[in-house]
Amino acid sequence: MKERLNIGLLGMGVVGTGVCQLLAEQREAIAARTGVEICITKALASPYDDKTAIAQKYGFELTSDIQEIYQDDAIDVIVELIGKIDPAKDFILGAFAHKKHVVTANKDLLATHGPELTAAAQQAGVALYYEASVGGGIPILRTLSTHYLPDTITSISGIVNGTTNYMLTKMLADNLSYEAVLAEAQAKGFAESDPSNDVDGIDAAYKMVLLTKFAFGMTIEMKDVSITGIRGLAIEDIAHAQQLGYEVKLIGTAQKTPSHHLAVSVGPVLVPKSHPLASINYEFNGVYIESTGIDRSMLYGPGAGARPTATSVLADLTVIAKNKVAGITEPFVTFEQPTKLAAPNELRQCYYIALNQPLAANQQKLEWINQESMAEKAFMTKPLSQSELTAELSIFEDGQISQIMKVMEE
Amino acid sequence: MKERLNIGLLGMGVVGTGVCQLLAEQREAIAARTGVEICITKALASPYDDKTAIAQKYGFELTSDIQEIYQDDAIDVIVELIGKIDPAKDFILGAFAHKKHVVTANKDLLATHGPELTAAAQQAGVALYYEASVGGGIPILRTLSTHYLPDTITSISGIVNGTTNYMLTKMLADNLSYEAVLAEAQAKGFAESDPSNDVDGIDAAYKMVLLTKFAFGMTIEMKDVSITGIRGLAIEDIAHAQQLGYEVKLIGTAQKTPSHHLAVSVGPVLVPKSHPLASINYEFNGVYIESTGIDRSMLYGPGAGARPTATSVLADLTVIAKNKVAGITEPFVTFEQPTKLAAPNELRQCYYIALNQPLAANQQKLEWINQESMAEKAFMTKPLSQSELTAELSIFEDGQISQIMKVMEE
Repeated sequence: MKERLNIGLLGMGVVGTGVCQLLAEQREAIAARTGVEICITKALASPYDDKTAIAQKYGFELTSDIQEIYQDDAIDVIVELIGKIDPAKDFILGAFAHKKHVVTANKDLLATHGPELTAAAQQAGVALYYEASVGGGIPILRTLSTHYLPDTITSISGIVNGTTNYMLTKMLADNLSYEAVLAEAQAKGFAESDPSNDVDGIDAAYKMVLLTKFAFGMTIEMKDVSITGIRGLAIEDIAHAQQLGYEVKLIGTAQKTPSHHLAVSVGPVLVPKSHPLASINYEFNGVYIESTGIDRSMLYGPGAGARPTATSVLADLTVIAKNKVAGITEPFVTFEQPTKLAAPNELRQCYYIALNQPLAANQQKLEWINQESMAEKAFMTKPLSQSELTAELSIFEDGQISQIMKVMEE
Repeated sequence: MKERLNIGLLGMGVVGTGVCQLLAEQREAIAARTGVEICITKALASPYDDKTAIAQKYGFELTSDIQEIYQDDAIDVIVELIGKIDPAKDFILGAFAHKKHVVTANKDLLATHGPELTAAAQQAGVALYYEASVGGGIPILRTLSTHYLPDTITSISGIVNGTTNYMLTKMLADNLSYEAVLAEAQAKGFAESDPSNDVDGIDAAYKMVLLTKFAFGMTIEMKDVSITGIRGLAIEDIAHAQQLGYEVKLIGTAQKTPSHHLAVSVGPVLVPKSHPLASINYEFNGVYIESTGIDRSMLYGPGAGARPTATSVLADLTVIAKNKVAGITEPFVTFEQPTKLAAPNELRQCYYIALNQPLAANQQKLEWINQESMAEKAFMTKPLSQSELTAELSIFEDGQISQIMKVMEE
């Protein structure tokens, strides 16, 4: 007789519905390979939102009282797909208090309250898995915890926000302005009516907080991430970058400095066309890893969407199912290192500078300018620290500079 | 007190030495995260090959008698890095007979005797892991077994041979002939003096046999793979492909036909430049997966080399170490499906055809030719089955066709 793993589902939006559907499709195949039948038995629904159709279709009970899920001893795992902090956080802590495992896709919550939740799960002796929170369907977090365990990562860089990557790809492909692309993305449902979370780099920063923990073992907070968004990026800058041999991408990077401190940032970056991240277009995501063992590797896939994200949720559930049979509980991440953040000037890098007027004759031969990159109204610098950059740029008049972006090395 | 996992090492070539070195670098970090110290305690060395220096450097004993490793009850795992079939196969079966786990990078052996070895490991209740056998440092096999377990893969395509990808990249980049690039690769040690295994597609086919098992659960043999190599590929064909918007890559593909049969092939393929596999250059490998859950994803990294391959070996050892603490043994792959191979004409695809002379006027308007792709001495077909292709090509004279390659869909 097969074991069962019973799920209490919180959240029946796009991803929650995706989990119901994929599980219906995959239940038998999963049972054949793990010996465990995974069943959604109850779901939490607001009394103001009729979910009877989906409950009947997939054969589970509805309740408007979270206690009914907590108190149900047959439920092994709570799958939280409500998102945001409240009430998701309390629901997850409640699950732990009732010795139930939790699977979630909630990046906002994990990035802001990860250590507290992880500690609570550990104390309760249950699992807290969140593969779906970074890179949608991409198998990034568990792979960092397993395959990269015997490796030393020196930097991890990713296109981890699909909305902005879609916008940047579309600006270049159709020669559209930032405003026009944003309006189109909103009309198609790829961007929200208030797009700040995506275009200001907040969503990417949440993911970098999580990637930093899995890649370096270091716990950081949102305030430790230097964040720049893509709001108002000019199509001219993308065109200039093309001429110089680069694509403009919103890149999150966590990297070790020569003195082993960590610098974490999110911002628009000029990526050399030969770099694997350069050819990631539209809504796709990619995470590029440099390490002392494997050297250079990348994982690529859809960064969002109901079915990819639901697959990551099912992958977490499958691990819990196998562990139930084996009688063990595995933590999601075992990497613990003291957090040592880099000082602002520890990293030197090249910058792209765009101007509103051409450089004056006496500005063109400046020693810190990469002369080969000189265009009429844009150029790249030699490697500079942040304060060196600020000092050099002080020769420009107010309003002469229209854009500054980092440049990724080949 | 920490647990120990003791290793008996067979093979101290490039990868074996890499394992010694990486383990020396990573032992403490692995112990901190798993609670297990992994130690090479004995290595097998031929009496004709002095390995004292490496044994002293890394602190293990040497023996010329495999029995001394088998009989050593303190040894938990045998790491086999000799390669080829004999004596590696007997050594591995001997390890199982003595209840020792095995980690290997031996793709030839697993592709030709995988089912026998897997059954022997299972019967002995030990693990047989071989992450390093496909894609060097890329975390492909275990990820297929875990993250893709709740997904249904419809096709898996890879650049899984670094030597030929290096050669193809170099031909285009430096406008060199096949012969010139092969000679250069041999001089640099990237290709062997007898390059058949790489250039004739044999090595890639071994890897496709393994990927087929992990992606589809189907056991196939080398004879089931339709293999074409890159021997004698003309630089003109690569240039033609460029003009049409394609890169030429040696691609291994295992894909489901509409009737759920499996077609597995290795050969030079025209890959659209917008496809993620198109930008994988030089010695890098990539495995691209289409599935009903995640949709489209790819894993990318170095396909060979001492440190990347050794990292995959260490990743396998780390799993065995964690399982030792948990008191469990996990099989590497649990996917079992009846093998249903496609008939030769089940798949229809587009082909690239290169000619020695331009098409005659009465040949140019043929209905099965993709008219948009017409060049002076090359064109692409509309989708055809293999026998349709043969029938259509019968109108050409002997020697009029210089090259036929498959074309990958966008």
